[in-house]
Amino acid sequence: MLAVAILAAGKGTRMVSKLPKVLHRLSGETLLKRIVNASHNLNPDKIFVVIGHKSNLIKDSISDNNIKFVLQEPQLGTGHAVQVLSKELVNFNGNLLILNGDVPLIRTESLQKLIEIHKSENADVSLITTKKNDPFGYGRVFKKDKLIEKIIEEKDCNKNEKLNKIINSGIYCFNWQELSKILNKLNDNNNQKEIYLTDTIKLLEKSISYEIEDDEEIQGINNRIDLAKCEEILQRRIKIKHMNNGVTFINPLSSSVSEESLIGVDVIIDANTHIRGKCKISDNCIIGPNTYIENSFIDKDSKVINSTIFNSEIMNNVSIGPYTHIRPGSRISSDCKVGNFVEIKNSTLGNSVKINHLSYIGDSNVGKFTNIGAGTITANYDGKRKHKTQIGENCNIGSNSVLIAPLNLGNSVTIGAGSVINKNVENYSLAISRPKQLNIKNWKKIN
Amino acid sequence: MLAVAILAAGKGTRMVSKLPKVLHRLSGETLLKRIVNASHNLNPDKIFVVIGHKSNLIKDSISDNNIKFVLQEPQLGTGHAVQVLSKELVNFNGNLLILNGDVPLIRTESLQKLIEIHKSENADVSLITTKKNDPFGYGRVFKKDKLIEKIIEEKDCNKNEKLNKIINSGIYCFNWQELSKILNKLNDNNNQKEIYLTDTIKLLEKSISYEIEDDEEIQGINNRIDLAKCEEILQRRIKIKHMNNGVTFINPLSSSVSEESLIGVDVIIDANTHIRGKCKISDNCIIGPNTYIENSFIDKDSKVINSTIFNSEIMNNVSIGPYTHIRPGSRISSDCKVGNFVEIKNSTLGNSVKINHLSYIGDSNVGKFTNIGAGTITANYDGKRKHKTQIGENCNIGSNSVLIAPLNLGNSVTIGAGSVINKNVENYSLAISRPKQLNIKNWKKIN
Amino acid sequence: MLAVAILAAGKGTRMVSKLPKVLHRLSGETLLKRIVNASHNLNPDKIFVVIGHKSNLIKDSISDNNIKFVLQEPQLGTGHAVQVLSKELVNFNGNLLILNGDVPLIRTESLQKLIEIHKSENADVSLITTKKNDPFGYGRVFKKDKLIEKIIEEKDCNKNEKLNKIINSGIYCFNWQELSKILNKLNDNNNQKEIYLTDTIKLLEKSISYEIEDDEEIQGINNRIDLAKCEEILQRRIKIKHMNNGVTFINPLSSSVSEESLIGVDVIIDANTHIRGKCKISDNCIIGPNTYIENSFIDKDSKVINSTIFNSEIMNNVSIGPYTHIRPGSRISSDCKVGNFVEIKNSTLGNSVKINHLSYIGDSNVGKFTNIGAGTITANYDGKRKHKTQIGENCNIGSNSVLIAPLNLGNSVTIGAGSVINKNVENYSLAISRPKQLNIKNWKKIN
Repeated sequence: MLAVAILAAGKGTRMVSKLPKVLHRLSGETLLKRIVNASHNLNPDKIFVVIGHKSNLIKDSISDNNIKFVLQEPQLGTGHAVQVLSKELVNFNGNLLILNGDVPLIRTESLQKLIEIHKSENADVSLITTKKNDPFGYGRVFKKDKLIEKIIEEKDCNKNEKLNKIINSGIYCFNWQELSKILNKLNDNNNQKEIYLTDTIKLLEKSISYEIEDDEEIQGINNRIDLAKCEEILQRRIKIKHMNNGVTFINPLSSSVSEESLIGVDVIIDANTHIRGKCKISDNCIIGPNTYIENSFIDKDSKVINSTIFNSEIMNNVSIGPYTHIRPGSRISSDCKVGNFVEIKNSTLGNSVKINHLSYIGDSNVGKFTNIGAGTITANYDGKRKHKTQIGENCNIGSNSVLIAPLNLGNSVTIGAGSVINKNVENYSLAISRPKQLNIKNWKKIN
Repeated sequence: MLAVAILAAGKGTRMVSKLPKVLHRLSGETLLKRIVNASHNLNPDKIFVVIGHKSNLIKDSISDNNIKFVLQEPQLGTGHAVQVLSKELVNFNGNLLILNGDVPLIRTESLQKLIEIHKSENADVSLITTKKNDPFGYGRVFKKDKLIEKIIEEKDCNKNEKLNKIINSGIYCFNWQELSKILNKLNDNNNQKEIYLTDTIKLLEKSISYEIEDDEEIQGINNRIDLAKCEEILQRRIKIKHMNNGVTFINPLSSSVSEESLIGVDVIIDANTHIRGKCKISDNCIIGPNTYIENSFIDKDSKVINSTIFNSEIMNNVSIGPYTHIRPGSRISSDCKVGNFVEIKNSTLGNSVKINHLSYIGDSNVGKFTNIGAGTITANYDGKRKHKTQIGENCNIGSNSVLIAPLNLGNSVTIGAGSVINKNVENYSLAISRPKQLNIKNWKKIN
Repeated sequence: MLAVAILAAGKGTRMVSKLPKVLHRLSGETLLKRIVNASHNLNPDKIFVVIGHKSNLIKDSISDNNIKFVLQEPQLGTGHAVQVLSKELVNFNGNLLILNGDVPLIRTESLQKLIEIHKSENADVSLITTKKNDPFGYGRVFKKDKLIEKIIEEKDCNKNEKLNKIINSGIYCFNWQELSKILNKLNDNNNQKEIYLTDTIKLLEKSISYEIEDDEEIQGINNRIDLAKCEEILQRRIKIKHMNNGVTFINPLSSSVSEESLIGVDVIIDANTHIRGKCKISDNCIIGPNTYIENSFIDKDSKVINSTIFNSEIMNNVSIGPYTHIRPGSRISSDCKVGNFVEIKNSTLGNSVKINHLSYIGDSNVGKFTNIGAGTITANYDGKRKHKTQIGENCNIGSNSVLIAPLNLGNSVTIGAGSVINKNVENYSLAISRPKQLNIKNWKKIN
């Protein structure tokens, strides 16, 4: 049996925020959600989240029936958090893994390894440690043979002890039976008047440690400088993964990719490109520079230059940008070209449609091979409701046209430049609304 | 009594520039202005700027009546600069602080501390030093007990002396009475044929040093690589300050913030965002990615995505971007939405105005709750003058309309799509200029 | 006599790519082309490229009559590559320089120095080495007096040998006469069953090394992480060169410049600016932030803010941006202003033309001092062909006009706002196509 407890009751004063610390985000996901996800990967029997400060906000951030929230009020330290939790574990027989809501980069594999060692060694408590080049601020872990002898907080270390670079991660695996026997012996006889979980080490008999190599995994977050540091570490991990999978990043430091996004082989991600939410970019695409894509699919051989795409599907061999904005609900079919200063919203373009300049196409279907002239506007909003525009195949929409929805244009329709069209047009027809051109001589001289 | 002298006579050959070195900029402000500002923070009795190369350009860059410019012509070294200055200090009784125009990152607190130590130790000269990991190129400072024994230039150091990492910052506080006694003993008996201020150390009796911890403070600027290095240091300082105050930077290295700008709590600054001049961003705003804001105010809960704003006011809960350009003199009231490919210039929008796409609104007032359709242009320029457009509340401006200024539209006015409007329109009226739509069948087949 | 052989037969499995490794690009140029260019700088008598994997793709990437391609099939190692090559060098009497297609940052000067030392020392083989702080993965070079004693691959090093930081670059200069004598003694008696060129060291008598200081020169490329590392090194080199020549980069890490581009004195390159292909930027320009320029010329005192320019010429004192797109074949003359959401394609603007907002000007000539109103479209495409638009000097094109090409507007022509113009207009004339404005009272109340 495995129970996981995530400590998330603290305020995080140094974040200087109205949000509790664990609701700040890394690459789009809250710190807490990241730890919850890592916990689920362990397939535990129970997951507890110990909450306190702004507990309702935290509950609302997680919609997960497999999580049990436990209120710690007031918050008197990590040991106290586990004391509060103990009422939920009365008949529990197994191991309790303690995670911190503000240590978001710990790998599932490291947790699995901790539990494995804990079990095989039959330990009372097993602690993740690591070696930090600059251990300043962390509690130091001292070992005697295989056992942990003691943990000393930075401020209590003497000069010699400060040289010890092995630090406490705050991630423990406890034998619950053993822990519960000594849990009430923890007290707050210290300067902070807090009950510390570190004190369990000396009360338990077999305390062991598992030292992980990559100290970045246990980078904690106390302030927004740490938050930026974790973001950088996480992004480095993600981009290295993609580079190893066959993606070229032209200036990796300037770009970001969400963890959930997939990127195909021989994709080139140019500078300052941001792929967020859940995206899939297929093989051979060129994305960027200066492109922002969220929750979208880009099929192979497409090119998205200096553009913004939300919640849409771009099929293969499409060319988008620069300065294009594809808004949610759009589907751009194969071989389309969408150019500068064009906005597409909640619309479907058939194959090989061209919308090269300065247009707004909203709530529309555009048939294949149609060419939309520069300055075309679908007037989909009558001040009260949105309406649909249907444009057939092989149409030619003249420049600076307004298509007033609801409107239905057939196939092979031609719209004269500068027209305002509010009546349907049959296949093969020309529709136009245009006064005759009048030339008045010597105008400039007169004026 | 305290006098400050800023040395700014040099050319800065290695900058390879038509500008004198001290007129190059860091985060928008010239190097000289930065040192002048730091000097003012000390409340000195006098501030001198020693100028030489392109002296008029330098004078013109500072409009500050409390500064006295002293011309050093020709420029024969730092000691010579102070010799030239001495005629301005004939009856001066107090301390003279020497600053360099090309050491722009020195903190006011460090200068205050230098003066304080100088006074309490009753020194003849006090010098700021620091320890550099890579001291290459700097003069080394050798101490004997509390006194400076000697300063040796890099090129004159032997192998052993080069291992000394304590370097000369070039920032001195002198007892003027003592300095003036020996000032004329300085000579140019050296390879460069220059008169060095460092030579005062051996001529004065009590030479002490104040070693500062942060060696970045005395990063000097000799070329544009140094300039970029100082920019990076300065930006790091600024962004760390904001992070500690409750601002999240998603990719801090890619963004920049001017020193004068204020940013509220829980603001998120996304990648590649640049806040320049004097800005104020209030709580809970989301700014960026790819946003440039200069001299503007953004009130709380607003969102500015991938946009450019100059000298304007954006009230609370406004949504701007992507690809929006707000030009100087604009005021966007609460709850407005300004969308893609929209330019607003010198205009005021009332509450809840929507201008979602492809419009140019210049020299206009737009009343609250008005909706401006895509492709709307205010034609404010008749080829000679700019005119004003007045649009009332609750109006509905159809797509691709041209509003020819001067023009006055009342409240609840509707403008038909594609209209050119050059006559005023009363409250509740519809104005339209549109020929009837003509459909011609079989056009495509005929052609 | 000097022959150069570039080894480019490998697949580069760890690139995870459909492209052979040497066809990946750094700053726009393939790795192979970079090595070929460096080879040409040595003025050799022959240049060979040894190819194997996807040999046709590689051949097609180089159109260079001075290159001889040699097919190595199958690929049995570097020694085998030279064995295959030997048939091309039957009567050759001179030195053979071996370069690797995946070591693209080696400087011509280092190669020249290698050859020089090789000749002056009358060596059988001379090898470039360097000291790596982290030599992990590289073969270590062990010397005895001036000679190379042996090279041991990482995996064959004992603990002590691993401490040696002198590594093998894989760049050799051979006395061909001596090499050819022992070439057939190389064998594949090793775990990889490959024939290694390193084995020549022990077979030749006088093996010397030339240790270069800058270990970045021999950064090899095995995967896309290495590719990104090389890109960063190359870009750092390029930007330092420009900074030393008088160019200010505001955030150098965020910008990139191609090797072939020239930049004048006192140019300011703001953040996230990318100058690609063959560009020339003249003195005093301000470029960026967020600007992309490819194969273009920008004359002095011009300003390009947040814009995109391809294959065009921008004359002096022009202001472009933000959000401007200049497409290939455009020439923007002195003192022009091209503003936001404007696309210019294959067009020439005379002096002092203003196109400030939301326009598309394609295949057009615009005479000097003409003002193009917001929303102007040149309708250059009739659905089949592109046509030309000619606009004279001093014209005033009203907002939201469509100019249907082919069209000829004379000088001092005025076009009424909202017009669709498809007939030519004489000098000084006004052309207009506009229905009268109709105001209908109480419309809003009725509706």
